[in-house]
Amino acid sequence: MSMPDDKILPHATGEAAKTVEKHKEPQDLVFYAGWFCPFVQRSWITLEERGIPYEYKEVNPYKKEKHFLDINPKGLVPAIEYKGKALYESLILCEFFEDAFPDHAPHVLPKDPFDRAYVRIWVDHVSKVIVPGFFRLVQAQEPEKRQQALEEYYTALLKLSEQVKGPYFLGEEFTLVDVALAPWAVRDYILAENRGYSRDAVGKGWKEYAHQLETRDSVVRTCSDKEHYAEIYGRYLRDEAQSEQAKATRDGRTF
Amino acid sequence: MSMPDDKILPHATGEAAKTVEKHKEPQDLVFYAGWFCPFVQRSWITLEERGIPYEYKEVNPYKKEKHFLDINPKGLVPAIEYKGKALYESLILCEFFEDAFPDHAPHVLPKDPFDRAYVRIWVDHVSKVIVPGFFRLVQAQEPEKRQQALEEYYTALLKLSEQVKGPYFLGEEFTLVDVALAPWAVRDYILAENRGYSRDAVGKGWKEYAHQLETRDSVVRTCSDKEHYAEIYGRYLRDEAQSEQAKATRDGRTF
Ligand SMILES: N[C@@H](CCC(=O)N[C@@H](CS)C(=O)NCC(=O)O)C(=O)O
Ligand SMILES: N[C@@H](CCC(=O)N[C@@H](CS)C(=O)NCC(=O)O)C(=O)O
Repeated sequence: MSMPDDKILPHATGEAAKTVEKHKEPQDLVFYAGWFCPFVQRSWITLEERGIPYEYKEVNPYKKEKHFLDINPKGLVPAIEYKGKALYESLILCEFFEDAFPDHAPHVLPKDPFDRAYVRIWVDHVSKVIVPGFFRLVQAQEPEKRQQALEEYYTALLKLSEQVKGPYFLGEEFTLVDVALAPWAVRDYILAENRGYSRDAVGKGWKEYAHQLETRDSVVRTCSDKEHYAEIYGRYLRDEAQSEQAKATRDGRTF
Repeated sequence: MSMPDDKILPHATGEAAKTVEKHKEPQDLVFYAGWFCPFVQRSWITLEERGIPYEYKEVNPYKKEKHFLDINPKGLVPAIEYKGKALYESLILCEFFEDAFPDHAPHVLPKDPFDRAYVRIWVDHVSKVIVPGFFRLVQAQEPEKRQQALEEYYTALLKLSEQVKGPYFLGEEFTLVDVALAPWAVRDYILAENRGYSRDAVGKGWKEYAHQLETRDSVVRTCSDKEHYAEIYGRYLRDEAQSEQAKATRDGRTF
């Protein structure tokens, strides 16, 4: 299925569409989102987890519309406006929600300073190793590259899985590690269908943990129908996507 | 000057040596450091800025000694031990010091939630664009690659410089953006001597800002003598360094 990035379906579907429907009223916090975006989903999961009032606004970031570039000069979703000021970057938004809404329990960062740092170390692993590894695997074209990328992706997931206390990363508490990773657990069927990936092959309880992540209420409520994700990933699987992420993967750059 | 990474001078010199001397007594917080390491310097600047009691322990991370791998399985400095628990990653340590020592003013993260997020956005730019750009430039061998890396490094610095309120990034307050970047301002003479870089060529007040950073007390107190940094960078300049950072730069990976 071929389509330019800026022809993306202009609205969420499935469970996510119902959640959007509940967040149409004007609020102090405006959430600029793309239903398809795993980075958006992180911030969205956090808003839903914590019951923070927000207004959902769908943006197609590939159009680079001026009004949106005024909010995020990088032109990426997610972004927010709150009391006349704009912010962006999925994980920074999650931390902002902690700082700006301290009374909205539950929190995604633990109270204990050591636990907070421990969570941040593993969020860092998700950002620097797991997510780039996912895109390298999706975009890999030659068989040997695919094989290498698959093995690296397994290694990256295994390393984290070994630390999972269960049911979530830190135990009963659902934290930023789970938030940061869940969107890629949701989307790993793309790898299973196209890159020979299987959850079982990771070992060390990854399968059970991934299942916990994708069935968490806040995660389910922010998911669109699977067939629409598949449309988006077609371009990645042929390594034709022109997103900043796709280009960074091709150039071997941090993103 | 050729030498394997594990033959690094085993102690700080100059101002940093005096600071080490003042932090030899046992303390609850043990700081595992390498005098030469810009990532270490971030955490060290923060400890000095905030007057947090710590015990300095010099480690050569390239030796991968077992006792150190027990503290940081990644085998990288900086790392800490505090009340029997270990943590690592320079910026995560800086945030940990905020969380674990809330009464030690001044802070490197502002109080206001928006300002905190704004600081984190620009720390992210330092981590994802400026630091990798520095290493790409140092390690670039062919003339065209050097030219391209130099231009990209200027662009990365300019982008941040445009946001500097002065004297520091956020104004009078010395924040995590300044902390995260200062070690690379201190070391940019390596680029000037070997890669045709000049502070003036960046424009937009970078020269003045870089000067503010390198003359800040906490930065000066954590600097060794310049000639010893030059020994370390010889291997990077010939693209022979075998550090995780150097390898990641060569492979085009996030680090
Ligand atoms: N590092 C960013 C990444 C956000 C991102 O890449 N969003 C994509 C959609 S999934 C986007 O807006 N892409 C537009 C583009 O690449 O031009 C974050 O964590 O928020
Ligand atoms: N991302 C780490 C990087 C730390 C790092 O790379 N430290 C270097 C010394 S400057 C190191 O320990 N290298 C040992 C190695 O690469 O084997 C941080 O910010 O703390």
